[in-house]
Formats: sequence, structure tokens, C-alpha cells
Amino acid sequence: MIKIAVDMHGGDNAPDIVLDGIEMFLKAFDDVEIHLYGDESKNRINHPGLKMHHTTEVITMDDEPVRAIRRKKDASMVRAAESVKQKETDAVVSAGNTGALMAAGLFVIGRIKGIERPALALTLPTIGNEGFMLLDMGANADAKPEHLVQYAKMASIYAQKNRGITNPTVGLANIGTEDKKGNQLARDTFNLLKEEPSINFIGNVESKALLNYAADIVVTDGFTGNMILKTLEGTANNIFKMLKETLLSSTKTKIAAGLIKKDLMQLKNKMDYSEYGGAVLFGVDGIVIKAHGSSDKKAFFNALKQARQSAKEDVTSLLKQEVTHE
Amino acid sequence: MIKIAVDMHGGDNAPDIVLDGIEMFLKAFDDVEIHLYGDESKNRINHPGLKMHHTTEVITMDDEPVRAIRRKKDASMVRAAESVKQKETDAVVSAGNTGALMAAGLFVIGRIKGIERPALALTLPTIGNEGFMLLDMGANADAKPEHLVQYAKMASIYAQKNRGITNPTVGLANIGTEDKKGNQLARDTFNLLKEEPSINFIGNVESKALLNYAADIVVTDGFTGNMILKTLEGTANNIFKMLKETLLSSTKTKIAAGLIKKDLMQLKNKMDYSEYGGAVLFGVDGIVIKAHGSSDKKAFFNALKQARQSAKEDVTSLLKQEVTHE
Repeated sequence: MIKIAVDMHGGDNAPDIVLDGIEMFLKAFDDVEIHLYGDESKNRINHPGLKMHHTTEVITMDDEPVRAIRRKKDASMVRAAESVKQKETDAVVSAGNTGALMAAGLFVIGRIKGIERPALALTLPTIGNEGFMLLDMGANADAKPEHLVQYAKMASIYAQKNRGITNPTVGLANIGTEDKKGNQLARDTFNLLKEEPSINFIGNVESKALLNYAADIVVTDGFTGNMILKTLEGTANNIFKMLKETLLSSTKTKIAAGLIKKDLMQLKNKMDYSEYGGAVLFGVDGIVIKAHGSSDKKAFFNALKQARQSAKEDVTSLLKQEVTHE
Repeated sequence: MIKIAVDMHGGDNAPDIVLDGIEMFLKAFDDVEIHLYGDESKNRINHPGLKMHHTTEVITMDDEPVRAIRRKKDASMVRAAESVKQKETDAVVSAGNTGALMAAGLFVIGRIKGIERPALALTLPTIGNEGFMLLDMGANADAKPEHLVQYAKMASIYAQKNRGITNPTVGLANIGTEDKKGNQLARDTFNLLKEEPSINFIGNVESKALLNYAADIVVTDGFTGNMILKTLEGTANNIFKMLKETLLSSTKTKIAAGLIKKDLMQLKNKMDYSEYGGAVLFGVDGIVIKAHGSSDKKAFFNALKQARQSAKEDVTSLLKQEVTHE
């Protein structure tokens, strides 16, 4: 039985979509047990697979992450993380404050010995549906070359075990594909990745090629990774917004809109990375999954599925063995 | 009379679009003189406003920038830059190798005394058509906080003189809007910009807000700036590509495509930053404009127009006075 701790009060539409996602999940799998942390008066699920744990505090989006984790001891997120630490559950899933969840991973659950910096990894869509994993998305804004090498190793193990990719390719996000491109961090990291035997490094990849599937895994520092993600999101959202305005601008375009509505929705969904689950916090001694703050029930369901898969494969033990004791 | 040196052999479609752009430009303005550097046998323009200067070498996209500038002394780009250095012309425009043009600016024309690092600045579109200037786009991948402050000062002067914006707002590209967000460089730069009296600093701006007009000027280091630009370009191009495929996928969608074709082209053009001209290399002792490598004649025309405007306002002298002697 796989036990997943869920933060009931994380995300823009919590607890509704959290509960909806859990219901979908409990219907789909019978080898799981959900440990729900939150205000029990707001839980409406009555299912043998759900264990309710009442908590009295909530971490909000405005909370300063580290302080919130330290002071709000009875927050749903903190208690859920604590259950992973105590081995009462195998994984924690939250759609709440990203910084706070990272802090909970780091200070409540703790780092894997030998991992210098945890990293937040997200699987993003590509045009051809291969998908790729981008990390770090912002856990560590000032990274060193050695950190990026650890990210590459952790993501390679994860891609093999969780996504079933044999010998996954690793690229370094850079501003050109030539070997000596980039800033000091990129150039130094390139040299280390090239010499690392345990990964399948294919060189620099440009951010304009990411959606065309440049590599299975793309590593970068947390500042750059977050910048790439937000630029990508912002550009896609704005184009779809302008497209919608264009389609509603006249009778003629409204007729056209009716004809292509379904196809356009498919296109928009293709760009929706919540289809791939949540972001994974690599390097902490337990499975921590961050669902997108604006998750709907399907996205939260996907994050739970991802937690289940990681727990089944015991990704944490694999990371411990292969990354740190070699 | 404003004299503009043009590199005939830069860009994917040179010299054709270069010559087409010049013809448009000479028709539109009678206060300009074009000094064209390149293979005179390929010039087909016969106009009193055009002076041909024959050159025998070409810098290609594959050339290593600094080496090419130093060795190919008779390259069209080098000779054009040399004419600015010798005050024979007021500005140089090229759609060629970006690195080489930056090197030509730096080593042929030279830095303005007191400017530590030149920066490449590009005006990008916004949804509401305000546009904003992003710099550095990659002239200096390893920037220091002091460099970014100089970028902000130079761009502020340029925005006032060349774009007619009174008291232009300056934002710092960051991964959150809160004051203490980001990596060490961003945090240190934030503190310096906040204390700088000569600019109108409005704080951190997130990359997802850029297309919604976050500030008139957005400063960042050359690595991040180039990463933002390429992510933006890649995302937009891929969405439009997928949209085209969707619209051609069935009879029904083809009918719709016919109805909205014109509106979609307008939307696509809105995202086209060549409408705003080329990228400007700030901090060198002359006007250097980089037109996009895939410029069409209209884009090259806009780059020439931008060079003319900068020369008319004598932006270089203003930068010298206000940035360095205060």
C-alpha cells in the first residue's frame, strides 16, 4: 500500500480541486492510501482509502516560506511533510506556496546526505509530445557547476525509473549551441558535464529549441530555469489571449471560431504542463511533489499519480544509492 | 546630411533585402546618405544618395567574432565600422554575425570612456503596442551590478531622445516582484538601482509580465536577456506553427482559416519585433545598429530609420555627457 500525504489547503482553488483530485485518484487506484492534512470540517470524502488528519493552521501564498514553516507547526503543509519525515507516508503532494514547500522539504524532511542543493524539476510539453524535464526551476537561485551536475544525475535516474526512458539525454540550457558559449557558470558546467560518465550529455541547448524536444533533461541554475518557465508561460498565455480576442472581434471571426474551437482547445491543452504532473523536489529524503497553484482536479490527479509512481519505484532510495555513494 | 554606413553582406537574405531596404529608405528620406560597403558588382542601386565602397571580404555566421574582426580587415562589416571610427559616417547598420558586430563596435569603434561594458538593447513588442526595451541581449554574459546600472542610465537617455518617452520607467528582470527576490546579481543590482537618482526605477518585473508592458526599460545580464529573448521567440514561433498545422488539418478548419487569415497575420505581425528596428549597441563611441539576421526589407528599413533617428539626436554625445561626466 502506497501512502500519500496531501496538503488540503494549497492552491488557488483549494480545498475543492484537491478533494476532487483525490476522489478521481482513489477511484483509479486501489493500492493507495491518502493521508489528508487539513480542516476536517471541510472534508467531504468518505472512503476507506482516505485517512483524515485534522490541522489548525494554513500557509498562505503571502507567507515568508522559511518563517512560515518554522512558526506554523500545525499547518497542513508542515504536518503533511512531517508524516514523510516520520515514514508514516511515502510522499507529500501540495499545490500551495512553492517556497514554503521547498522549505518544508529542506527543513522538515531534510536533504539526502551528499546532495548539496535540492532542485525543483518540472516536466514540460514539447510539440511532438515527448516532453522534457527542466531543472532547477528556482529552488537554488545561485547555483555552482557542481550543483548542476548533481541535478543532471538525479534527473537521469528519475527519467529512467519514473518515465521509462533508457539512457536519457541531458542538455545544458545555454545562449548558443557551441561548446564555449554562455556565462562563466555555463562554461564551467559544460566542462564538468562533458567529463561525467554516469550521464548521457549531449551539449548545450538553446531555449528557443526546448519546445521542439532538444533533450530529455535540461539543466540550468534556478534563476535561469524560473526565468525560462515564466517567459514560456507568459508568451503562451498572451498569444492565446490575443488569439481569443481576435476570434471574438467580428461576426466573420466568430463563425471561424465555432469551426476550430475544439482543435484550438487541443492545441492549448498541448501546452499545458500540468498534464505531466507536478514539479518534483529532487535531493530531499522523501518524495515531495508540487502541483501547480492553479491546478484543476485533473492536474492534481496527475500530481498524485506522479507521487504514486515515484513511491512505487522508490526513487528516493535510488537517488541515495546512485548519486551519493559512488 | 546624416551618413549611414551599411554592411551589404550581413543577414540571411543579403545583399537582396539590404538593397531593397536602402531603396525604400532613400525614397522616404532626403536628409540621408548611404555609404554601402560590399562587393560593388552586386550593387544594383543607382541613386545620388548612395556612395559605394568596394570591399573584398565577408564575415560569415560561422566566423569566430573577435578573430574575424582582427583578420578580415577588408570585410564589409569591418570597413563600415571603420568609417564610423573615422567620423566619415554617423552610424553603422548590419544584419550580419551579431558577435562580430559587437566586436567591431568594441575593437574598431571603441568604448565610450567610463562605460565598463557595452550592452545590446532591443525594443520588443507588447500586447498594448507600447513596446519596451530589453538589455543586455548578450553583449556581456557575465555582468556585474554596476554594469546593469549603466545599462539603465544609457537606455533611459535613449528612450527619452529616440522614443520620446518622458521619465521612462526602469524594471529589473527577476523571478519574482518582491524586493529581495532573485540571485545574488539581481539582489545586488536591485539595491544599486533603488539608490540611483538619475533613473525612474520601479522595481523587479517578472518575465511573464513583459509582453503586458511591465516597464519602458527592462535591464538584466546578457545571459539572462538572451535566454528571455530566445524563449520568447521559440514559444511564439512554435505556437504559430502549431496553429498553422491545426488550421490546415481538415476541410472545416481550412474554411475557418480562410475567414481569419488576415486577422491572424495581424496578430503574428504584432509579435514581430523587427517593426521596432534593430538592436542598438550601447556604450560604444558611435551608433551601431544590428538588424535581425532574418530581416526582410521592411525590417532593414526600420533599422536604417532607427540609425537616422539616433544620429539626428546625437545619442552618442548625450550618452557621453550624461552617463560618464557626472
